[in-house]
Amino acid sequence: MRRVAVTNFGNTKFSRDDTPIESLLLSATKSLFDQTSNLSQKDIDVVLVSTNENSKYLAAILSELSGIAPRISHTVENLCSSGTNAIVSAYSYIAAGLGNVALVVGADRFDSPGQILEWDKSRGEYKHPIFWASIFTKSYKRAYNVSAENLAIISVKNHRNAKDNPNAFSNKTYTVDDIMNSKNLTEDLRILDCSRPCTGSSAVLLTSEDLAKKFTDIPVWVKGIGQKTISASFTKNQNFNHMNSTKDAARIAFSIAKLKQNDVDVAEIHDAFSVCEPMIIEDLGFAKKGEGLRYSKSLYETFDRKINPRGGLIGAGHPLGATGVAQTTEIVQQIQGKAQKRQIENTNVGLVHNMSAAATSSTVLILKS
Amino acid sequence: MRRVAVTNFGNTKFSRDDTPIESLLLSATKSLFDQTSNLSQKDIDVVLVSTNENSKYLAAILSELSGIAPRISHTVENLCSSGTNAIVSAYSYIAAGLGNVALVVGADRFDSPGQILEWDKSRGEYKHPIFWASIFTKSYKRAYNVSAENLAIISVKNHRNAKDNPNAFSNKTYTVDDIMNSKNLTEDLRILDCSRPCTGSSAVLLTSEDLAKKFTDIPVWVKGIGQKTISASFTKNQNFNHMNSTKDAARIAFSIAKLKQNDVDVAEIHDAFSVCEPMIIEDLGFAKKGEGLRYSKSLYETFDRKINPRGGLIGAGHPLGATGVAQTTEIVQQIQGKAQKRQIENTNVGLVHNMSAAATSSTVLILKS
Repeated sequence: MRRVAVTNFGNTKFSRDDTPIESLLLSATKSLFDQTSNLSQKDIDVVLVSTNENSKYLAAILSELSGIAPRISHTVENLCSSGTNAIVSAYSYIAAGLGNVALVVGADRFDSPGQILEWDKSRGEYKHPIFWASIFTKSYKRAYNVSAENLAIISVKNHRNAKDNPNAFSNKTYTVDDIMNSKNLTEDLRILDCSRPCTGSSAVLLTSEDLAKKFTDIPVWVKGIGQKTISASFTKNQNFNHMNSTKDAARIAFSIAKLKQNDVDVAEIHDAFSVCEPMIIEDLGFAKKGEGLRYSKSLYETFDRKINPRGGLIGAGHPLGATGVAQTTEIVQQIQGKAQKRQIENTNVGLVHNMSAAATSSTVLILKS
Repeated sequence: MRRVAVTNFGNTKFSRDDTPIESLLLSATKSLFDQTSNLSQKDIDVVLVSTNENSKYLAAILSELSGIAPRISHTVENLCSSGTNAIVSAYSYIAAGLGNVALVVGADRFDSPGQILEWDKSRGEYKHPIFWASIFTKSYKRAYNVSAENLAIISVKNHRNAKDNPNAFSNKTYTVDDIMNSKNLTEDLRILDCSRPCTGSSAVLLTSEDLAKKFTDIPVWVKGIGQKTISASFTKNQNFNHMNSTKDAARIAFSIAKLKQNDVDVAEIHDAFSVCEPMIIEDLGFAKKGEGLRYSKSLYETFDRKINPRGGLIGAGHPLGATGVAQTTEIVQQIQGKAQKRQIENTNVGLVHNMSAAATSSTVLILKS
């Protein structure tokens, strides 16, 4: 099997702008080209777009706009984890020998139609994700004797990390009191416990082993890929303190990578809501069940950026189809030593965790220099 | 590289029904399971949906509805060639070792939003595909001294083939006079020159080499894959008598398969409009430029079903995201000897040609027993 690397990246600032989806896709592509020497349009033979937008044929449109005439081009959609699904698809095209250089660009707008899963009737009248998140939050608080103030530390930490990310949607810092005093959306969630819909785009370049060094001195190898779909309805998750698809995806990814949790230096994880971060930390195996919040709190207290250095979804914003790609750009920057103010020293192994619809499906990627 | 086979298929009747997209996807999946012994939900580790519908998370929804909990699941969209793009993606997951058994289900409804490419301003006010098809038709008629009556033979032939396809949208046969007397849509196109929007779904199962024999006695191997995206605007095609993306895709596919046009026993090609069939026959290399119509006419006169045995898009109907999958099910049936009244004797090598938006992109698959 041919090895595949992520070699380069591009990003736009996450905002509430009313930019058309085509322009968003082009901006991240331009950002990637601007930061990549030796890359010509002719090199690219796969163009994948990840988005929840309703517009069709966006990969061909992006190709035309950016002067690329690829062999393979199409859109990948899987709600909030569209980004990592597109990256895994690009990986497989290269590993299977159908392409050598793949451009993956994720984008969505603040008004993306992917924010509500109309089909999931198990939510009853409560279609917005904050309702599953409320149930998860209430359940987690009860099971582990956690208070709303305890959970608020996640938002405090991730906003602090986002302050050093020039592309983040938020550039404010908050105290626990600020979180607690922000607008109540449900009994268990305040607005600052939630990732925010926004407009943004991110891009990564993947290449085959023989071409990686043409575009970077530090190829970031895709060492492990784990994915799992449990269902599409959040009530099929038998226990609201566990993210079963995340557990399966992590097990598969670590097994393929032949690495352990201790080997991971940095992780981007899908903190769509405060409670998600400790649950994911536990289900990825970084902490025992019920100890994820203590784990995050300790990172906060020691100014350790290991989890969600770019600010997570809560601090950086959540433009759905861009999120998994943006998470990957952060891990690539950390491993390549390009994360500027956010740089974690001696970073060699990174993890991306991206999920959809109450963790009914998850992707875990393990990347290594 | 692991070899990949298409082993099984499922189909629904193409109609004008108002069936929800989720039910359509489930129907083709059930049809596939009903025709596949030894297949259990647990075997399937990749579920891909190809569609132009705006609904999100359909691969996870289909998985839940059909009792599958795959590793990989997502939607693939690339307008009218979504189906073959999803099949190539499934191929690459298996070839890359990320999955062993992939279910690909394509579906669309008669009112699919993929029927109009809003973005292509090169069409001016004329957004419907019949306007590019009119320009192609006028150009082809001028270049090769062809009349509307000459072109009508395509529709006559493909409707006749569709009569023996129980899943076809049309079960009527027509004469050249019928075509000529059908409703005029533009100066160069009558309604019976056009494929019809309809509601339908098709499914195929792809497996790794070691599992193929578990599900069929006659695995149909994916021998060649060729894809090309030229642009997203039909006016970027410099010559309206050529489909450049089809030429490139054919060249790549035949080269990978190490086969020649003479080796092909049967082909499903994307006759979205009458003029497309001769142009595609030429650009695939089955006939010299300008001789595609004579080629089709000769098949008609000798009752030879070699091109579009299930009736093509004109006879069988064109539910966008299902089309590439349905074309593939026909080639699989022909190679496995399961095409009933449509069966072509001694069929060993088959070709699928699927394209999008005035052939701004094309896929060619070469399949072999």
